[in-house]
Amino acid sequence: MPETLPAPCAPEDARRVACIGAGVIGGGWAAHFLARGYDVTAWDPAPDAEEKLRRLVAAAWPALEQIGLAEGAAPNRLTVAGTLAEAVADADFVQESAPEKLELKRSLLAELTAATRPGVVIASSTSGYPMTDMQTAAGDAARLVVGHPFNPPYLIPLVEVVGGERTDRAAVTWASRFYEVAGKSVLTMDRELPGFIANRLQEALWREALHMVANGEASVADIDASITEGPGLRWAFMGPCLTFALAGGEGGMAHMLDHFGPSLKSPWTRLEAPELDRALRDAMVEGCAEAAGDRSYADLVAARDQGVIDVLRATGRLGGTTR
Amino acid sequence: MPETLPAPCAPEDARRVACIGAGVIGGGWAAHFLARGYDVTAWDPAPDAEEKLRRLVAAAWPALEQIGLAEGAAPNRLTVAGTLAEAVADADFVQESAPEKLELKRSLLAELTAATRPGVVIASSTSGYPMTDMQTAAGDAARLVVGHPFNPPYLIPLVEVVGGERTDRAAVTWASRFYEVAGKSVLTMDRELPGFIANRLQEALWREALHMVANGEASVADIDASITEGPGLRWAFMGPCLTFALAGGEGGMAHMLDHFGPSLKSPWTRLEAPELDRALRDAMVEGCAEAAGDRSYADLVAARDQGVIDVLRATGRLGGTTR
Repeated sequence: MPETLPAPCAPEDARRVACIGAGVIGGGWAAHFLARGYDVTAWDPAPDAEEKLRRLVAAAWPALEQIGLAEGAAPNRLTVAGTLAEAVADADFVQESAPEKLELKRSLLAELTAATRPGVVIASSTSGYPMTDMQTAAGDAARLVVGHPFNPPYLIPLVEVVGGERTDRAAVTWASRFYEVAGKSVLTMDRELPGFIANRLQEALWREALHMVANGEASVADIDASITEGPGLRWAFMGPCLTFALAGGEGGMAHMLDHFGPSLKSPWTRLEAPELDRALRDAMVEGCAEAAGDRSYADLVAARDQGVIDVLRATGRLGGTTR
Repeated sequence: MPETLPAPCAPEDARRVACIGAGVIGGGWAAHFLARGYDVTAWDPAPDAEEKLRRLVAAAWPALEQIGLAEGAAPNRLTVAGTLAEAVADADFVQESAPEKLELKRSLLAELTAATRPGVVIASSTSGYPMTDMQTAAGDAARLVVGHPFNPPYLIPLVEVVGGERTDRAAVTWASRFYEVAGKSVLTMDRELPGFIANRLQEALWREALHMVANGEASVADIDASITEGPGLRWAFMGPCLTFALAGGEGGMAHMLDHFGPSLKSPWTRLEAPELDRALRDAMVEGCAEAAGDRSYADLVAARDQGVIDVLRATGRLGGTTR
C-alpha cells in the first residue's frame, strides 16, 4: 500500500478535527478544539459516551470562556458520529484517545488510516506506547504520530509529538505546527522514548510516591502536601533544572553539582543516579546558562520570587481570594 | 551530660532566632524570620558572608513587603555576630544551614548544643542527612531536629521536621509548632527517611532528568518545558496523587490504578515500581478519597480547572501580565 503524504491541507488551514475516543482525555481534546474554533466530530463506542462527552464539554466551557474563545467557537459545533468512518470522513486531523491497550490501539490506528482521506495526519494520545509498536497493523503508517497531552487537554498547554519508525518526518512537522496553531505548547521529540519526556519525569516521582505509601513512609496527604507546599510552587513556571541552578546561588548549576553531586550517591530515592561525569556536568551547566540567557542571577531570583508570590496569590494562599 | 528540655520558652514566645550559616538557604531563612518580625542574629565564617547576606535580604525585601510583613518587621533587626557563641547566646531557636558535609554538621551541632542556653531547640536545614547521623558528637542531642526548607525559605512554605534517635519527641513538637507560628507549612515526620518526603520525590524526578541528559534523550530546555507547560501547572495547588485521581475520571484513583496499573511495569522511567497489591491500591484510593472529602468529582474538576487558569494567568500565560 502506498504511504501518502503530504496532508490534504496546511496545518494552518485545518478546520475539522475528529476525536476518536471520548473519555476524560478524548473529551478534553474535543473541548479544547471546540474552544479554539474548530468543528469537532467525535466517536466513542460506549453507550453513554455522547451524554458524558456533552457533560464534560459543558462543564469545561465556563473555564474556556474565561481564558478566551476563538472567534466563532461554540459547543454546538460538536457532532457525535454513529460510526468511526463517519467521524473521520471529512476530518483534516484525527486525535485518537482510546483506552491504553496496545492491541486496541493497533487495530484502531489501522482502521483510521483506512477511513481517513489520504494524507490526513492521525495523532494518538497514548501515555507511553511508542508509535513504532502501535503502527504495525496500519497500511498507511507514514502519517501516524503520537500527540501526547496532559489532563485536562483544554487547559494544560503541553503536547509531546513524536513519530515511529514508519512515520514520515513530514507528519511530525505537520502535527507540531497544527498543535501550535491550535494553541498548544509543543515538545517535538527526535526519537522514541518510552513515556516521552514529562511522563518519564512524573512517573519517576509517582513510583517513588507509591513505594513510600507501600512502605508506610508517607501518606497520600503527606505526598500531595510536600509538592503543593514545596517544589510544585516553583515548577508552575520554572523547571527543575533552572530551579536547582538558582539553589546554587551565584555559582549556579556548576556550584550545585559540585556541592550536591555526592548526594546523587545517597539513598534519597530508589532511583539510581547516573555517573556525574564531566560531560553530564557540562551539559547541565550549559543548558542552564542557555535557559538563563542574558538574565543575571539577581534577575532570575527576582523573577522566581515574583513567580512564587503570584502563584501563591493565584492559588489563594496569600488571602484576598476565596478559593 | 544531662539532656535538657523543655525549651526556655514556648514556641509562641520565641523572639530571637540565630541563623548559623548565611548562604542561599541560611540567608533565605534570615529573610523569612525578619519578615515575620523576629530578631535575627546570623553567623557565617566566610569573609564576605555579611555583605552577601545583607544583599540577599535587601533583594528579598520587596517580595516580602508584597506578601505582607509582620508588625515591626525590619531588615535592621538583623545582627551579624563575630562568633558562633555570640550569635546563639540569647537565641530562642537556632537554624543551622551550613554546607552539606556530614563531619561539619556533626561538629557544628555539637558546638551549638554547648553554646546555646539549656533546652533551646536547634534545627538543621540539611537536605538529606538523617539527624541520627548528625547528632553523634553532640552532648545534649535531645533538642536537635531537622527543619528542612525549600528554596527560597522566605517564600516556599514547606518545612519538613523530623528528629533522630536521640532527639526528644518534645523537641520535634516544639519545632513544628514554632515553624507554624513563624508562618511555615509543616510536615512532621514520625520516622527518619533519607531525603525526607519532598526531596525523595523531586530527587527521583531529578535523577531521571540527569539520565535523560546523559543519554541525549532530552535537553535541559526540554526537561524544564515539559514540567512548566505540563504537570507543574497542576502541582502548584494539587498534588500528584489527587491529580492522578482526577485523570481517572469519575472512577477516580481506583479506575486510574486499574487502568494504568500495568504501565507500572513499563520502562517509563528507570525507577522500578512497587508491586501494586491490594493493600497499596486501597491505600492510594482511600488517601485520595480523604483528600477529596465531601467534594464531588465535578467539584474537584472545577477547582482544578480554576486553579490551572489562575496559575496560567498569574504566570503571564494568558496575557494581561507583563512577565
